[in-house]
Amino acid sequence: MNSETLEASLRQVVGGSNVIAGPQDGPALVVRPGTTEAVAECLKLFHEHQAPVVTLGGLTGLVHGTHTPSHYFGISTERLNKIESFDPSTRLLVVGAGTKLEAVHDFAAEHELRYGVDLGARGSCTIGGNIATNAGGNSVIRFGMTRSNVVGLEVVLSDGSILTDLRGLPKNNAGYDLKQMFIGSEGTLGVVTKALLKLGPRPAGTASVLLALNHLNSALTVMEALERGCGHSLLALEIMWNRYFEKVSTALSEETPPLPSGHPVYLLAQVEGMDSGEQAVDSLVGALEGIDDIIDSALATTPVQESRLWSIRDGSDVIERAHKHVLSFDVSMRPHNYAAYIADVEARLKARISDAVAYYFGHLADGNIHFMIGHDGSSSDATRIIEECVYDALAYYEPSSISAEHGIGREKAAHLWRSRSTVEIAAMNRIRVALDPAGILNPHISYEPRIF
Amino acid sequence: MNSETLEASLRQVVGGSNVIAGPQDGPALVVRPGTTEAVAECLKLFHEHQAPVVTLGGLTGLVHGTHTPSHYFGISTERLNKIESFDPSTRLLVVGAGTKLEAVHDFAAEHELRYGVDLGARGSCTIGGNIATNAGGNSVIRFGMTRSNVVGLEVVLSDGSILTDLRGLPKNNAGYDLKQMFIGSEGTLGVVTKALLKLGPRPAGTASVLLALNHLNSALTVMEALERGCGHSLLALEIMWNRYFEKVSTALSEETPPLPSGHPVYLLAQVEGMDSGEQAVDSLVGALEGIDDIIDSALATTPVQESRLWSIRDGSDVIERAHKHVLSFDVSMRPHNYAAYIADVEARLKARISDAVAYYFGHLADGNIHFMIGHDGSSSDATRIIEECVYDALAYYEPSSISAEHGIGREKAAHLWRSRSTVEIAAMNRIRVALDPAGILNPHISYEPRIF
Repeated sequence: MNSETLEASLRQVVGGSNVIAGPQDGPALVVRPGTTEAVAECLKLFHEHQAPVVTLGGLTGLVHGTHTPSHYFGISTERLNKIESFDPSTRLLVVGAGTKLEAVHDFAAEHELRYGVDLGARGSCTIGGNIATNAGGNSVIRFGMTRSNVVGLEVVLSDGSILTDLRGLPKNNAGYDLKQMFIGSEGTLGVVTKALLKLGPRPAGTASVLLALNHLNSALTVMEALERGCGHSLLALEIMWNRYFEKVSTALSEETPPLPSGHPVYLLAQVEGMDSGEQAVDSLVGALEGIDDIIDSALATTPVQESRLWSIRDGSDVIERAHKHVLSFDVSMRPHNYAAYIADVEARLKARISDAVAYYFGHLADGNIHFMIGHDGSSSDATRIIEECVYDALAYYEPSSISAEHGIGREKAAHLWRSRSTVEIAAMNRIRVALDPAGILNPHISYEPRIF
Repeated sequence: MNSETLEASLRQVVGGSNVIAGPQDGPALVVRPGTTEAVAECLKLFHEHQAPVVTLGGLTGLVHGTHTPSHYFGISTERLNKIESFDPSTRLLVVGAGTKLEAVHDFAAEHELRYGVDLGARGSCTIGGNIATNAGGNSVIRFGMTRSNVVGLEVVLSDGSILTDLRGLPKNNAGYDLKQMFIGSEGTLGVVTKALLKLGPRPAGTASVLLALNHLNSALTVMEALERGCGHSLLALEIMWNRYFEKVSTALSEETPPLPSGHPVYLLAQVEGMDSGEQAVDSLVGALEGIDDIIDSALATTPVQESRLWSIRDGSDVIERAHKHVLSFDVSMRPHNYAAYIADVEARLKARISDAVAYYFGHLADGNIHFMIGHDGSSSDATRIIEECVYDALAYYEPSSISAEHGIGREKAAHLWRSRSTVEIAAMNRIRVALDPAGILNPHISYEPRIF
């Protein structure tokens, strides 16, 4: 590869000011194409020079999926950030891949509509990144993951050819549904440049409730009652174990937290009212009536009250700052297994890393729990040992996944065999080679079979 | 290829009585493996001998997807027809690919549950075939297509390796979601042997209404009212133009049809009541109140009454018998374009095939209309000309699909370019070669780029 020729050609395609120096510990060069055609020209060049390239979106991923060594190139979707078109009759919205999730929410709100995917990083993460990781978030219980909200894609393949399906037909069985392959592929099969998103009606109001409970079983009882009583109006059902709740709720503000800490488990539920805000409150209160397991509760019926409760759930950066090192995990399994699994992880951690503190929270209804495990680095090899504690225990609670919604990235590649068979991993790699024969797209994300 | 060696080996794998002579105009030999492992052994043999093989399910497809020349082999899923397991807590059901759709409905009903995919061929079609074609049907508006109802798959790849994901995790972003690729791939990427299906709660009752209308615009008005007024309780919304309604309703029984024919458009809507049958009736009647466009209506509040209305919608075999030759079409587009498109097709047909009679009906809310075009064969080359009339007109009503739910099969392969770009078709073929490098799986289904 002649890197000078490549660099000069890239400058010619995107303009000199859009070939910039990469961040420290990142790629030496980042290109910022402003159109799909420019992305295609860049990829043709990378392909020709067999130059490895990583697609960079909002950089909010949690598995080092956009890790880029200095001999790789970065291709940023920053300038592909336009709202391209909107059809009010079908509620289908075409946006550039670099559009921030929050900008989509704002656009939807201006049209009195709503987009189904929401998550804490909404102000930084991009739609392209959401698609690359099949992002989940708080409302999966209601709207599904990103896959369920994306109706079409435009993707540039590794050889620079542009694959477009922005037709937005509810039914189209004319050959394979190719977009399904790109959603969740973490930039290994192509560079997403545009997406066709489905917006939906906006509720008149929402209400949230924070509940204190004595046991995971009570949380499962409450979940059943909410799913039965609220049906499709249940927007979110989040769980926080006490160690997380206590740490975040007391750190967040000077005010007394909405509920005292110290109870084993906390649930945060949100419900919508399509016709009125009162409908949301009635539905929530009605569904919870007569459940003895609730020790304490705080109801939020205004946006300000709701945002106070949600700031606890969304406040995980408090944990990030509380320890010298923090590892994040994102596992899924059947919810009734969680109590046993967490006890198992706690015992393993205690035996092997004396200073490890684990905080548990997540999306109960999806069987998806996040762990943040902080430690001060006094044990050497702590990362490997903590990963072993979390993942080795997981094997006893099948079916389970080491990555419910974060993806594999560079961080979890060596653990993929824990959730996927050799045949599955081989099939992934065969499809990958088919679409990127030169192996230039995000090659640091390797789908590795088990290495014994 | 030594076909005698292959045949002897197949007999050894599945037993002599399960290697049978194929039907007339079909493959010389059909194998009927009884287990996934036997399917895998058979595919290893086919792979080794580079013998082309077509997966045979219920043979109810409408695009000659299971067309099998005599030098091909057939592999039947007939004996893979067991209900393998059911978990009431998750409502996840594992069934063999050869299980009839109706058997799944019966199983669900016994457990007071319901499976979302339903279609007229339910008594003959198999779950494996539904998956291979991503079958739609009457309740797509409520439950989505087969893709939305299948949570996991077991598939034997062309080299005999068994790819299994029957984990049934609501969230699993550990690598690509491979099942998405097999759903709708018409047997070209692997042989589906088992499926994990999601069952859901069963309503207490349903109600249906047949409406006579003066114009497609009125149907769109009614659709909007039903979608707004009934929300998730709207199970189906079918449209029949008069020529179809008249032909079928008068042929079906000695009784007077539920509504007189002669009105331009008929709608058939079905609504569910989760708590009671009255709820369904109230919801339906309430949503339609005050709509002036309805000329005539017949309400069905009992299963017997409902089945009488539905027998008209499901009675398309009346058309099959009414003409010497009948061609079926399955297109989708934005519903507001249908009136203009149908007028266009009618004009083209009239000018080119004097004896052609077209019957129009379908799933209005999905933008999916079926045509059946009968003729007596007096024009030579009628098939090609009729296809041109239907498809050439379609190009003016973008976005559109030549196959909303039937698939491509052998019949539509040469027309695929009308709904997919050269880049899309190339990507399909690359994935296909990756998973079936020897090209032995359903090779008669060819994804063809445009041939000028």
